[in-house]
Amino acid sequence: MSGLGKDLLQEPVDVGEYLFRRLYEVGVRSVHGLPGDYNLVALDYIQSTGLKWVGSVNELNAGYAADGYARVKGISALITTFGVGELSAINAIAGAFSEHVPIIHIVGCPSTVSQQNGMLLHHTLGNGDFNVFANMNSEVSCDIAKLNTPAEIASQIDHAIRKCWVRSRPVYIMLPTDVVRKKIEGARLKKPIDLEENPNDQAREDYVVDVVLKYLYAAKRPVMLVDACAIRHRVLDETHALLEKANMPVFVTPMGKGAIDETHSNYGGVYAGEGSNPEAKVRVESSDLILSIGALKSDFNTAGFSYRTSQLNTIDFHSTHTIVRYSEYPGVKMKGVLRKVTEKLDPGKLAMVPSPVVENIVPSRQEDPSPTITQAWLWPRFGQFLRYNDIVVTDTGTANFGIWETRFPPGVTALSQVLWGSIGWSVGACQGAALAAKDVGQDRRTILFVGDGSLQLTVQEISTMIRHKLHVTIFVLCNEGFTIERFIHGMDAEYNDIVEWKYKDIPAVFGAPEGETRAYRVHIKDELERLLTDKEFGDFKGLQLVELHVGKHDAPRSLVLTAQQSARTNIKND
Amino acid sequence: MSGLGKDLLQEPVDVGEYLFRRLYEVGVRSVHGLPGDYNLVALDYIQSTGLKWVGSVNELNAGYAADGYARVKGISALITTFGVGELSAINAIAGAFSEHVPIIHIVGCPSTVSQQNGMLLHHTLGNGDFNVFANMNSEVSCDIAKLNTPAEIASQIDHAIRKCWVRSRPVYIMLPTDVVRKKIEGARLKKPIDLEENPNDQAREDYVVDVVLKYLYAAKRPVMLVDACAIRHRVLDETHALLEKANMPVFVTPMGKGAIDETHSNYGGVYAGEGSNPEAKVRVESSDLILSIGALKSDFNTAGFSYRTSQLNTIDFHSTHTIVRYSEYPGVKMKGVLRKVTEKLDPGKLAMVPSPVVENIVPSRQEDPSPTITQAWLWPRFGQFLRYNDIVVTDTGTANFGIWETRFPPGVTALSQVLWGSIGWSVGACQGAALAAKDVGQDRRTILFVGDGSLQLTVQEISTMIRHKLHVTIFVLCNEGFTIERFIHGMDAEYNDIVEWKYKDIPAVFGAPEGETRAYRVHIKDELERLLTDKEFGDFKGLQLVELHVGKHDAPRSLVLTAQQSARTNIKND
Repeated sequence: MSGLGKDLLQEPVDVGEYLFRRLYEVGVRSVHGLPGDYNLVALDYIQSTGLKWVGSVNELNAGYAADGYARVKGISALITTFGVGELSAINAIAGAFSEHVPIIHIVGCPSTVSQQNGMLLHHTLGNGDFNVFANMNSEVSCDIAKLNTPAEIASQIDHAIRKCWVRSRPVYIMLPTDVVRKKIEGARLKKPIDLEENPNDQAREDYVVDVVLKYLYAAKRPVMLVDACAIRHRVLDETHALLEKANMPVFVTPMGKGAIDETHSNYGGVYAGEGSNPEAKVRVESSDLILSIGALKSDFNTAGFSYRTSQLNTIDFHSTHTIVRYSEYPGVKMKGVLRKVTEKLDPGKLAMVPSPVVENIVPSRQEDPSPTITQAWLWPRFGQFLRYNDIVVTDTGTANFGIWETRFPPGVTALSQVLWGSIGWSVGACQGAALAAKDVGQDRRTILFVGDGSLQLTVQEISTMIRHKLHVTIFVLCNEGFTIERFIHGMDAEYNDIVEWKYKDIPAVFGAPEGETRAYRVHIKDELERLLTDKEFGDFKGLQLVELHVGKHDAPRSLVLTAQQSARTNIKND
Repeated sequence: MSGLGKDLLQEPVDVGEYLFRRLYEVGVRSVHGLPGDYNLVALDYIQSTGLKWVGSVNELNAGYAADGYARVKGISALITTFGVGELSAINAIAGAFSEHVPIIHIVGCPSTVSQQNGMLLHHTLGNGDFNVFANMNSEVSCDIAKLNTPAEIASQIDHAIRKCWVRSRPVYIMLPTDVVRKKIEGARLKKPIDLEENPNDQAREDYVVDVVLKYLYAAKRPVMLVDACAIRHRVLDETHALLEKANMPVFVTPMGKGAIDETHSNYGGVYAGEGSNPEAKVRVESSDLILSIGALKSDFNTAGFSYRTSQLNTIDFHSTHTIVRYSEYPGVKMKGVLRKVTEKLDPGKLAMVPSPVVENIVPSRQEDPSPTITQAWLWPRFGQFLRYNDIVVTDTGTANFGIWETRFPPGVTALSQVLWGSIGWSVGACQGAALAAKDVGQDRRTILFVGDGSLQLTVQEISTMIRHKLHVTIFVLCNEGFTIERFIHGMDAEYNDIVEWKYKDIPAVFGAPEGETRAYRVHIKDELERLLTDKEFGDFKGLQLVELHVGKHDAPRSLVLTAQQSARTNIKND
């Protein structure tokens, strides 16, 4: 049970304790994961270090939940077991890597002795290779730490956690069963892990700032366009500070939605090329200077690469570099540049540009006479339902596109997975997000919009929401299958159909105690209208599930456009 | 839509058609998977080539189902979409690799043009790298075929399918969207893919056969011991032929269970070291010659490495080599050796050894007075319930160990995942196994034993059983959590607890039409006794679910032993 050189340690602590105290220090409160015999001894340290065990229902869901938790709380931890557990979660980890979400993934693995002896253990490929899963994970993690040698473990842990935070991507920590109780130096814990990113080289930063200001002062119709990496790399304060001082129109991309207060007088809506609302499209595409913050121009984030903007009119601020027109400045990171631009900016020298107005305009009965709930009606109507500080989670599919048409109240946090786009992600992510809000003691509503097809993949995570009494409202958009796939290919193909479930009955089956959850089935606009205006529904503190029936062949305009473009890209032949 | 050199093709067929016709040829009838926009065009070929689309509820379940299908039908196919889909399934693929199960995994991926241009597409890591997931899969697949160049595609497909079959392990086929409709040479389809393994070098084989016979004739107490790879590498006919001629006692390992007709007069039960029943243990360990066929001596298959046998008394027959005592014969494969040993064997020269008798002995009320269902009572009682030709699927945990105590009637196929041991696997595997039986027109009962904790991971695959009206009976062993983990570490720890569900209500929620499924809740022995003797229950053709309550701290004897050994291995420190 003891490490080498134990007697030389000033304040010996167990590896398990060291690791979990570091998790607590950087902001983790709840640890996601599932038990497995290679991680059980490690799990014993959770409670004693002030952490909570979540206990998800499967590892993919736990990974998605860790993703959602990190998006709200800043960082998260996931514990799985060797082979079976970690591979079940690897899609979630790949998604977090793709979308810049910091998850500390700890894998309980066979003892160092078993590994050295190449033992034929369960959860192995039977070939004595204990590195194969770490190799796979190295493709989707920004650090791999194999905790084998006590003298190195503390610095390996600190290095991995710092890298996770600064790069805002998953790291992988391999924790052998026999190492968990080894003693290492606890005195290190007095000094917190340094999470600050290294500052820019000042001369280079100053140069870039001057270039940016020069173009800003020369511009006639400057705008800001805020994208995913502004959120993920934590420059929203800098972005808002610049917005206040520069007072120019600001737009968000689909992946940037929620980054900007949408009731701000400068807010102009979602820009996504052809998928934008018409006024946003004109404003951005006629701009002679776009300050693009944290851009991530993927197909679904640009309505199928339909931007009509020019790099000659663009300044790109990124977490690792800046690009002004075609001039690239590697290593000049956006945080420092944005701060200094704001500081030095003389607003008097800027062109004054009026901002467009964005409202939730719900189509009237005349415009949209169908009693059935239409996508065109639904999303602005939800905008009216939302409140200050809500957390809104949307799944890939109609929800992810529909939400473009929803104007948020202030303080709303929006979660979506537009680049990685793994269906079912949102159910896990919703659990993690709601738990994160609870962990900081905030009484926020977490509202999930998920299609029936997507919900089916990960449905059992509703059980974990019940376990932790989370404050969640789930809208299940029931349209008999995979609508986004229908619009790409196979509108009425059998492979896009699903089995129809009794969604309303799910919470009860998954263990919801009588009275603690509510469930509804809604078929027409009037019913939904009544529900959304019901104060009890809006204020309910537990889990609510609304089975919401919508048309099988109805989809948000932006989804239709993007799907057509995807279908073209798939068969393009030159 | 056309391939290069199309005019030179004698019988042009689309790549999609070629691939699916080959699947049909080797025995696939139902194709598992989920739709995703990168595989939709490929899915259009399923119906026209005589195949059926399964449409599982998520990719991990689909992978597990493909595993179960292959174990019953011989081989299977799984279709997923790039990135998100394939990674969700990779744990199932790793399990199939570990346990020698042949799955043809087809991944619909972005077009060759998109890949060449490094486009920033959904389901990518955003870094333009389209090989990263193939790299991961290469660790758990015995062939990787990237179908990019029409002139090579037919031979790539044929090579991959042959390798899948002969090696009995997964292969990975990457099918770009723009390649599906390209034309390739269809004339090749007239010649079936050669699935025969290459014969042994005859001189070497003869030499080994003589050595084997020499030891056989010299042995006083020879026995046969049949393990996993005898099933997976298809030498059961050879094994039974040898058994008939040699007339010696035969035992199976846990992973070999079902390989031998357990009503055969020579059948002596399960050998797993300390986990064996006492008579089997004595017989095997006192034998002076063990003919070990297809051994896979993993921890859980040997009750924690507790064999007390000597290599000096062992001949190991493997799919790639033979070992006689310490003499190794690489490349001398068991199929040829077993055939020739049987052919040349003179039974008159063999020592006659009486075989033990194995029965399902259910403890009497005196021996096991508790009204609660005990593990000691349950498994032999199930043995009496089973019938000729049943398929029995057991999950990792109590079921996988309990089944050691069940003697099967003839014709039973047993599925378990003892080496890889991924909890929840059995629910998907059960769907695949039942579908495979249906596909060959056999009216077999498929019976699943799964713990409550394990079921929760993959529960939605019950929906697919309903979709295809499969003939399945599910026994959910309810004991409030992960019992196998409790016995390894943390008997009453929170992390081994789960949320209690209303299991009985699950089929209804997942779309079971009124009357087509049945569900039961059983708390005591008498209730279960009544159910198991009810003819209607035994003969019911649809889906049945039995919620079976058992003691939280009760476990099969062999599980307790194996768990203790695992706990020791985990903390061993030298």
